Amino acid sequence: MTERLLRTPTLHRVVRHNGLAFIGGIVADDEGLDMAGQTREVLSKLDAYLREAGSDRSKLLSVTIFITDMNVKPQMDAVWKEWLAPEDLPTRATIGVADLGGTTLIELIATAHY
Amino acid sequence: MTERLLRTPTLHRVVRHNGLAFIGGIVADDEGLDMAGQTREVLSKLDAYLREAGSDRSKLLSVTIFITDMNVKPQMDAVWKEWLAPEDLPTRATIGVADLGGTTLIELIATAHY
Amino acid sequence: MTERLLRTPTLHRVVRHNGLAFIGGIVADDEGLDMAGQTREVLSKLDAYLREAGSDRSKLLSVTIFITDMNVKPQMDAVWKEWLAPEDLPTRATIGVADLGGTTLIELIATAHY
Repeated sequence: MTERLLRTPTLHRVVRHNGLAFIGGIVADDEGLDMAGQTREVLSKLDAYLREAGSDRSKLLSVTIFITDMNVKPQMDAVWKEWLAPEDLPTRATIGVADLGGTTLIELIATAHY
Repeated sequence: MTERLLRTPTLHRVVRHNGLAFIGGIVADDEGLDMAGQTREVLSKLDAYLREAGSDRSKLLSVTIFITDMNVKPQMDAVWKEWLAPEDLPTRATIGVADLGGTTLIELIATAHY
Repeated sequence: MTERLLRTPTLHRVVRHNGLAFIGGIVADDEGLDMAGQTREVLSKLDAYLREAGSDRSKLLSVTIFITDMNVKPQMDAVWKEWLAPEDLPTRATIGVADLGGTTLIELIATAHY
């Protein structure tokens, strides 16, 4: 069975299927924030979407992070490390890309189990 | 069991394993088309690959879209929304990247069930 | 059950769950190498991480490759094709991105079974 949750005009925020939750394309609502602030907002939304999926941050399997300025990656990493217990860290890649729309600095895709 | 289908020199278009179908790196054959045209061609190829996987567009779980010009994202979204019933929308991210080769405007990666 | 292996300060290199191994964000240690050299190093690390996951290169399902210079993609492809038997090729996408940190030319994300 597949469950699709939290619909927008172009996507569902969460798709659950056979023990895996797919969560995609999370950006901060307030694009005026700096990298630390946008990362906090993205992770807060991720918490909410994981909860919706019947999962939580300790069940993340894989995360891909896209950022528009590799110079502020350390600020992202600092917030990330505060947010997750070391033993719960998923696999992760951080990719520097050209454009995430407006002044968005970070966008995150995740796969978790539930 | 793993099934790999539609081989090119560097990849298989479709890999099926334990209920999940991985489909990757779809671009339009005609790079001269505008964003709406390339999106239509990419989604038409995705239909064909999903069919090969024993799946279809209503079984998409997660899609990642890379585009080279965020300004024409609305044209991509318009074609996307025509193509999928709202209740079947997968999770999705759209990432603006530097280069997809030549004048390619859009490349799409998908995970579906079958 | 979920197993997380090879921890760094921000991630685990390998996460195993229910038959799937997630491996993320592999870059070459020696950023001074050219594309062929960095690709060889990335694939050598991928071999090691797959071994750790109880898997191997013949069990790859999906690979996403990010590169910073699409002009040297052919050098990457040449090393890739030597490394994998044609029947074992996974689905794959190659995305040209702005910045992978320093002079890193290639970063690779993989999903395998085990």
